[in-house]
Amino acid sequence: MGTKRIKRVLLNGCEAAADSAIAAGCKFYAGYPITPQNRFPEYMSRRLPEEGGIFIQAESEVSAINMVFGAAVAGVRAMTSSSSPGISLKQEGISYLAGCELPAVIINMNRGGPGLGDVTPSQSDYFQSTRGGGHGDYRTVVLAPWSVQELYDLTYLAFDIADRYRNPVVVLADGMIALTYEPVRFKKKRKKLPLKKWALTGCKGRKPNSIKSLFLTPGVLETHNWKLARKYERIEKREVRFSTYFCDDMDFLIVSFGTCARIVKESIEEARKEGIKVGLFRPITLWPFPYRELSEYLERAKKVLVVELNLGQMIDDVKIAAKSDKRIFFYGRPGGGVPTPLEILKEIKKR
Amino acid sequence: MGTKRIKRVLLNGCEAAADSAIAAGCKFYAGYPITPQNRFPEYMSRRLPEEGGIFIQAESEVSAINMVFGAAVAGVRAMTSSSSPGISLKQEGISYLAGCELPAVIINMNRGGPGLGDVTPSQSDYFQSTRGGGHGDYRTVVLAPWSVQELYDLTYLAFDIADRYRNPVVVLADGMIALTYEPVRFKKKRKKLPLKKWALTGCKGRKPNSIKSLFLTPGVLETHNWKLARKYERIEKREVRFSTYFCDDMDFLIVSFGTCARIVKESIEEARKEGIKVGLFRPITLWPFPYRELSEYLERAKKVLVVELNLGQMIDDVKIAAKSDKRIFFYGRPGGGVPTPLEILKEIKKR
Amino acid sequence: MGTKRIKRVLLNGCEAAADSAIAAGCKFYAGYPITPQNRFPEYMSRRLPEEGGIFIQAESEVSAINMVFGAAVAGVRAMTSSSSPGISLKQEGISYLAGCELPAVIINMNRGGPGLGDVTPSQSDYFQSTRGGGHGDYRTVVLAPWSVQELYDLTYLAFDIADRYRNPVVVLADGMIALTYEPVRFKKKRKKLPLKKWALTGCKGRKPNSIKSLFLTPGVLETHNWKLARKYERIEKREVRFSTYFCDDMDFLIVSFGTCARIVKESIEEARKEGIKVGLFRPITLWPFPYRELSEYLERAKKVLVVELNLGQMIDDVKIAAKSDKRIFFYGRPGGGVPTPLEILKEIKKR
Amino acid sequence: MGTKRIKRVLLNGCEAAADSAIAAGCKFYAGYPITPQNRFPEYMSRRLPEEGGIFIQAESEVSAINMVFGAAVAGVRAMTSSSSPGISLKQEGISYLAGCELPAVIINMNRGGPGLGDVTPSQSDYFQSTRGGGHGDYRTVVLAPWSVQELYDLTYLAFDIADRYRNPVVVLADGMIALTYEPVRFKKKRKKLPLKKWALTGCKGRKPNSIKSLFLTPGVLETHNWKLARKYERIEKREVRFSTYFCDDMDFLIVSFGTCARIVKESIEEARKEGIKVGLFRPITLWPFPYRELSEYLERAKKVLVVELNLGQMIDDVKIAAKSDKRIFFYGRPGGGVPTPLEILKEIKKR
Repeated sequence: MGTKRIKRVLLNGCEAAADSAIAAGCKFYAGYPITPQNRFPEYMSRRLPEEGGIFIQAESEVSAINMVFGAAVAGVRAMTSSSSPGISLKQEGISYLAGCELPAVIINMNRGGPGLGDVTPSQSDYFQSTRGGGHGDYRTVVLAPWSVQELYDLTYLAFDIADRYRNPVVVLADGMIALTYEPVRFKKKRKKLPLKKWALTGCKGRKPNSIKSLFLTPGVLETHNWKLARKYERIEKREVRFSTYFCDDMDFLIVSFGTCARIVKESIEEARKEGIKVGLFRPITLWPFPYRELSEYLERAKKVLVVELNLGQMIDDVKIAAKSDKRIFFYGRPGGGVPTPLEILKEIKKR
Repeated sequence: MGTKRIKRVLLNGCEAAADSAIAAGCKFYAGYPITPQNRFPEYMSRRLPEEGGIFIQAESEVSAINMVFGAAVAGVRAMTSSSSPGISLKQEGISYLAGCELPAVIINMNRGGPGLGDVTPSQSDYFQSTRGGGHGDYRTVVLAPWSVQELYDLTYLAFDIADRYRNPVVVLADGMIALTYEPVRFKKKRKKLPLKKWALTGCKGRKPNSIKSLFLTPGVLETHNWKLARKYERIEKREVRFSTYFCDDMDFLIVSFGTCARIVKESIEEARKEGIKVGLFRPITLWPFPYRELSEYLERAKKVLVVELNLGQMIDDVKIAAKSDKRIFFYGRPGGGVPTPLEILKEIKKR
Repeated sequence: MGTKRIKRVLLNGCEAAADSAIAAGCKFYAGYPITPQNRFPEYMSRRLPEEGGIFIQAESEVSAINMVFGAAVAGVRAMTSSSSPGISLKQEGISYLAGCELPAVIINMNRGGPGLGDVTPSQSDYFQSTRGGGHGDYRTVVLAPWSVQELYDLTYLAFDIADRYRNPVVVLADGMIALTYEPVRFKKKRKKLPLKKWALTGCKGRKPNSIKSLFLTPGVLETHNWKLARKYERIEKREVRFSTYFCDDMDFLIVSFGTCARIVKESIEEARKEGIKVGLFRPITLWPFPYRELSEYLERAKKVLVVELNLGQMIDDVKIAAKSDKRIFFYGRPGGGVPTPLEILKEIKKR
Repeated sequence: MGTKRIKRVLLNGCEAAADSAIAAGCKFYAGYPITPQNRFPEYMSRRLPEEGGIFIQAESEVSAINMVFGAAVAGVRAMTSSSSPGISLKQEGISYLAGCELPAVIINMNRGGPGLGDVTPSQSDYFQSTRGGGHGDYRTVVLAPWSVQELYDLTYLAFDIADRYRNPVVVLADGMIALTYEPVRFKKKRKKLPLKKWALTGCKGRKPNSIKSLFLTPGVLETHNWKLARKYERIEKREVRFSTYFCDDMDFLIVSFGTCARIVKESIEEARKEGIKVGLFRPITLWPFPYRELSEYLERAKKVLVVELNLGQMIDDVKIAAKSDKRIFFYGRPGGGVPTPLEILKEIKKR
């Protein structure tokens, strides 16, 4: 009779994300080296030209994001990647992308900070990603994968969301996902990309397009910002993503995302063996944050623990989601510290 | 008998802040031009050398913040100023300052964003200032003046706080305060500045100091981050500042900061004439945010309205402060829009 | 019987040079805008990608030449173009190309200098081109066309010479040739390019190559420089190019190059009508300079006049070529001044 | 009765040049680190602020020369220093200084080139210094010391010449002088500096000054260049400097400059012991070159040998100076090679 075999390839996170970007039709990459995401540009520099795309190692992080701006203006699926300090340098450029309503994908392999920090996994760029590290009232969609496969899938999705809303999308991963090898199932290569009537592609036979974020005539910037606000509302309505685990009979809820949630899941499996009814709520979109959805789970829980690889950042959003005056516990380890499942288990029992 | 006359000088916000920095003992300024804060460097370029300080117009915003880093390392009271896009470019440098525990003062004359936006007053950099626009688990103290005098006073204070905690301090104002002229009462010029034993001043006769944010030995970055965390807790305990107006009999609370709060105050005066018992809670430190203090006022209010010159950013902190499931209303106008007192009054009546 | 028709296309100098580079197999261009050579990159930005090449508008002149360095290291036919101030910024990079023995073509559309000067034709970069404006004992081959067709031909040749000797080649033209339209006969597109065993193309299955100009081990730099010296001697023997006009019965010799020689030729035609036996010696390679060849013509002349669009630069080489103590007259007009044929004729009669 | 004691201080070349600059009234230095001149900025960074001057380590060589431009425009005695590759990067800036007629002093501690080369002494930047490595018809005065004392004296003189003619002056030394320690006699500190009516110092009560090198109105750039030409003629008349040694009865003339001439002098002393009547002509100003003066010595010599630490650059000027068809021999060693007196003696005997 035959069995349908699904082909999977062993890749690390950087390679998976790069292959995903190419499958999604990305034709332009500009970046600047920084550990622990260097395998991404290294792999991309080889693969992208093979697919007819352009790879540029820019002179600086600031250059790289502005080159992405240029490619996006021209209607090309474009991206950059970096790690924490490099992403900080790109904040002006990201604000410009958002202000000009340009689609682009930015991968941040979060390392330990602040400053140079170290190259270990961390989630300390949550605030930066979800609250516009750059200036102005803009939002970037933030996708937080917890496995190499999900990194692949969300990178692919990121290009679609970016184009759908003409907005930059951040994929927030970390050094652990970047360098771990896991089997990955590929998506089909995008054949047809969305038509971008707004792009600056030369205006023979049509009226010229204009893309800008400078609006000096009184009132125009405000109008523009209200338009952005309505777009953000649409995104909040349509693009929220999250997962739950063991939540059917849960009375102790852990909220965690990305790599950290994966460790938490192991802790929960252990806790369950001991009869503790712990469940996991994992936001996949950090913005738009699943306030409404989480809110319901919070209502059902007697105890709530937020676990992050930082000093407490997503906890702000959990508090915002919480309707009643429930005490929300926090367990986290900042830059460089990655807890074991047992450490988290101990924390569960303590509460 | 004689009357004690207090001398006041008519200055715009930029000039006031510059004079305050000099009175506070600032001896180093590096910046890069951007409207609407250009009068600050213009004035400083003249005044600072007269006081034996060094003024540098750097080649870029990125250069400027790194020059401030260099001066701070050497133990000098140092500062920079800019406006929104310029501040975005400085995010990596600010993260480095925080990671290296270096005191520095950064003035942001918030303009309309995102991207180039316009040069009108705005409060759309609230998130960026309070949630580390840069990477990593760091915090900057954020001071939000609502008048030229307060801008003077808070700039002076900023240098003291920066030195006390070895941490960057942001003064978040806007183009309105920057360019408005108001009479200012001067503070005495600081004679004696705190001794900085940690500074890199040459190590003749003592052990060398070391200042860095790169910690590659496993565990060291985490230890460093916990040390930062404890410092941030101390700041949260000691440095919270806020003001309230008409709150004795209030049952309708408005939360607003900076320029916007000043407009709100006028609206409240009108509302009071009509018998509506509106009060104003004005955070002066945006970080540390007065959660506990605001929480008590929120409890007493039947209705809560947050007013900001943006699409809703501080409202996150108000929600975090709110213990019960109180509905919190928002009124704001994004980049470029400044409401009149009457508009806000209408909003009050609507609720 | 039939007539063989040679197809010629009307192009300006910039377009001709760009088409020639493409025909010669150039696959990489990096540059930065400066008048009067902007039509070159503008045209190239369209044409080069059509031919599978890469066009980059770099962030600065310094970036551009270093990108060319990178492409040349990889074995690709690479080039840049600019005008005087831009070429000055590239001097370090050109010295690096020469020191590393890398082929590359640099087009200088000489404008009036020094400093910003103006955008009129000039020959004031003769010294810079022929005496290594950069540091160290290096030489670049310098080709000086006097027509659009010759600009086409010499650009094509430049790539061959560059590869043959692994050395940068400068094409020194000016704004007049850059913007004049003349019919151009095309060369065949190069099918087969020279194999570059020395290039850094990945070293699978062979020993790694190394390309560098830093030689810190005592004696090694000197050995390297002697090797360069022998190469320059070979170039001096084989690559000298020049033209003469009306020299059979000449007793008054004018030495002139490029655009200026073309004006001189008209003056000579006029002078001949009046019975003055003037001839023209036109160096086409400014380095290697045709010392020996010119020397013979100088011997035959009773009077010698050097005419340049500058204050007297090539005249140094004419003096070096002159064996006897012959007085050599000079006529020139610096940056911005272009003499008419009649002005030069007057100068001829004066001597 | 007492003896007048002249105080001399043991200094290396870098320190001597720095002290000389300060004595000459230099108040502004901007530079960027490169071996073998790093002791210069290191020493200057300490000494200059003590004298009320400003020391800036710029972000790049390009920045440094443009900062010097800024200081010179303001009428301040300003300088930079570097070594070969760094000087190449400054060529655009030097052309701008010359075009704008701005006084400035540039010290080049010539290292072995081209490219990165090595850090040994070399004279391979002769062409670059004397033939405007930058674009356009400009000249810089070039002073070539052969001892630490002369480096001190010529640096002092450089500032005077720069101001007298409003022109950049290059001091061309090398790593040997830079790092050799010799006793130095100090000059008196300049009390009164020349008044600079042309400087941009604020125009209260007078008509504004204008300093620029961009002249787009037809004819104006040419007029400006003729003005420069007349200035260069004045310099050629007044500022030629050279020394001769053992030339009274000489019939074998060696022409050599800087460090190399010092080695040659030793060779000559040896040759003289053997009865060979060798003399030395040492140009001190490489531009203006002592053509006329050298010419007379060349006439008297039966044999001429040019000795340089390069592959033959000054020999061009010697050939230009030579009136008759005398064969001029050359002995040189390129980047990294420094001959011993005996090697040169052997060369003398060979001819």
